[in-house]
Amino acid sequence: MAAALSSGAEVRGRTSPNPPVGAAILDRNGELVGRGATQPAGGPHAEVMALREAGERARGGTAVVTLEPCNHTGRTGPCSQALVDVGVDTVYYCQPDPNPVATGGATFLRENGVNAECLDHEVEALVPWLTAVRRNRPSVTLKFAQTLDGFTAALDGSSQWITGPEARRHVHGDRSRRDAIIIGTGTAIADNPSLTARDGDRELPVQPRRVVIGGRSLTGHAGNLHRLGFEQYRGIPEALWRLWDTGARDVLVEGGAHLASGFVEAGLVDHIQAYVAPALLGQGRSVLTEAVGLSIDDALRFRTRRVVQLGDDVLIEMTRKD
Amino acid sequence: MAAALSSGAEVRGRTSPNPPVGAAILDRNGELVGRGATQPAGGPHAEVMALREAGERARGGTAVVTLEPCNHTGRTGPCSQALVDVGVDTVYYCQPDPNPVATGGATFLRENGVNAECLDHEVEALVPWLTAVRRNRPSVTLKFAQTLDGFTAALDGSSQWITGPEARRHVHGDRSRRDAIIIGTGTAIADNPSLTARDGDRELPVQPRRVVIGGRSLTGHAGNLHRLGFEQYRGIPEALWRLWDTGARDVLVEGGAHLASGFVEAGLVDHIQAYVAPALLGQGRSVLTEAVGLSIDDALRFRTRRVVQLGDDVLIEMTRKD
Ligand SMILES: NC(=O)c1ccc[n+]([C@@H]2O[C@H](COP(=O)([O-])OP(=O)(O)OC[C@H]3O[C@@H](n4cnc5c(N)ncnc54)[C@H](OP(=O)(O)O)[C@@H]3O)[C@@H](O)[C@H]2O)c1
Ligand SMILES: NC(=O)c1ccc[n+]([C@@H]2O[C@H](COP(=O)([O-])OP(=O)(O)OC[C@H]3O[C@@H](n4cnc5c(N)ncnc54)[C@H](OP(=O)(O)O)[C@@H]3O)[C@@H](O)[C@H]2O)c1
Repeated sequence: MAAALSSGAEVRGRTSPNPPVGAAILDRNGELVGRGATQPAGGPHAEVMALREAGERARGGTAVVTLEPCNHTGRTGPCSQALVDVGVDTVYYCQPDPNPVATGGATFLRENGVNAECLDHEVEALVPWLTAVRRNRPSVTLKFAQTLDGFTAALDGSSQWITGPEARRHVHGDRSRRDAIIIGTGTAIADNPSLTARDGDRELPVQPRRVVIGGRSLTGHAGNLHRLGFEQYRGIPEALWRLWDTGARDVLVEGGAHLASGFVEAGLVDHIQAYVAPALLGQGRSVLTEAVGLSIDDALRFRTRRVVQLGDDVLIEMTRKD
Repeated sequence: MAAALSSGAEVRGRTSPNPPVGAAILDRNGELVGRGATQPAGGPHAEVMALREAGERARGGTAVVTLEPCNHTGRTGPCSQALVDVGVDTVYYCQPDPNPVATGGATFLRENGVNAECLDHEVEALVPWLTAVRRNRPSVTLKFAQTLDGFTAALDGSSQWITGPEARRHVHGDRSRRDAIIIGTGTAIADNPSLTARDGDRELPVQPRRVVIGGRSLTGHAGNLHRLGFEQYRGIPEALWRLWDTGARDVLVEGGAHLASGFVEAGLVDHIQAYVAPALLGQGRSVLTEAVGLSIDDALRFRTRRVVQLGDDVLIEMTRKD
């Protein structure tokens, strides 16, 4: 399973609209003979890649896949058919496929004499894709860097650097695993950001789409975005619809506070990625500009999925409670 | 070392003004033959407790102690002498003793033919005591429960419950390991708190002192504190001095925001214990009432010592950067 999970995680950011799936093939004796991951849209799925590497040694063996093998002929043939053809004995998959057009892979396998068993194991790399399929729009992760007491900038507007180098490095790696980075016109004008995924000065090989939301013209502003290319949409619904329609499944909202409040008010925040610096400011600019409600019972509640210490900073990853 | 560390941790909250030290004795063959921890003030120190349990088997063996054995005759004899007398071969200690009147234990041991080696290993249970000795006043830990975006209460003042049952249980366990719990008159009047360490309805065996800071009279308010007994001091310096003078070394400031800001402004916050709930409020009451400064460079910076997930909440423990 570790081989399947890590193969899938490696291709995040390159597979949309398909899910970043990983697969591993063990031969009859339990030896790892093939691994693979979803190729960019139009290319083979994970199972097919892993089966190619395994060749004849897959016969009578076991396949471990992070998602239930698909059962429909899209741009590629169905993976469940490929597994039956090669004569695999057992297929373990971590999560069922909720996609109405692709589901039914496990049933097909069983009808064709292959054992198929769901392991019900959460797969980190598939969280955004599963959210997107369930919601029929891109999965939205709200990301921010804040002091412990909840400020994204000081009273004078300064915010460089709230978090340290390890957290910033993590942000760049994470950007390269997303389909798009979204900011508001306010941030585009104030910060002249590049929104690229970098390692030091070097751009990482996979870059997200750069998206700005808001009606204000950026002519004469945001030189870096003009140089690199970007998309602009007037409002949140239009942006999400166009992104979904053009294949984006996993988008990251990087601020500012007005746009973040817009996403919260529209009920469109599925996940939060908070980089918390061990520092106190006392007062400053908050994560959101609007109150979610008057009382503690109105608070928008999340489930904590992962907590990671990055140098002195703490990354808390959360998912909306439904 | 594990035996020494856990013995020391068990007696936190019961040893002040002495440090909660743990000790373990191994015989010649490396078998654990004794363990002990500091007894309440006036009682034996950890080494003596462990040596008593080990008896003759300590001769030629090894002692592991979380703090350098003391070298002065206070209410008890010096521990370094006791270790020499019984004929221990080697003493490993995790941290040197910074206390000017007790230091010199390692030198004394070496002069008397015992190997003594400092392991330079941070001992969680000793952090507050070491802070106190270095600063000549009780170690101050500021504790608060907040939403992710930094609010300790909603706009209408409601704050029950920001955090979940696991975090609240942890708070009570932690209280019983402190010498005193401090709140401001504002909280005493608004919340009628008990400030006891409880497990459900049951009071834990060791209770901290209950302290209120502020000039307002609590007559007719704070019935629970009147019933249980409490101390009141007009201001922060007076409170810390009186607490130090009567043996407290490790105090917890539980709020509210005005008093917390008072401690921050006076430069008196050594440690922070933040219980962060995965929830957004957008607006509400902040951790502090005053800005620490105008710019991000003015932020009060801490070092992250420990991050613990408690149910859905995250406890972040920090120590001031000097
Ligand atoms: N520490 C951090 O993590 C962080 C991250 C990002 C930004 N920042 C800081 O935040 C500041 C900029 O933030 P900001 O809040 O002024 O601007 P912003 O949130 O980046 O942009 C706000 C704009 O978004 C557009 N928008 C479209 N639909 C919206 C909706 N439903 N709700 C709200 N806005 C919508 C509007 O554009 P139009 O008015 O053009 O229609 C609105 O004016 C900068 O100083 C930047 O440095 C900090
Ligand atoms: N979520 C949480 O973690 C949490 C924790 C605790 C409290 N709370 C909430 O906080 C609210 C009460 O907070 P509060 O801020 O109004 O009151 P507070 O901070 O509890 O008390 C303020 C008082 O402390 C005294 N004080 C003495 N020296 C001070 C100094 N140097 N700086 C500041 N104050 C000093 C003053 O008393 P005098 O005016 O009498 O001289 C001052 O009025 C309550 O609603 C409570 O529920 C929340």
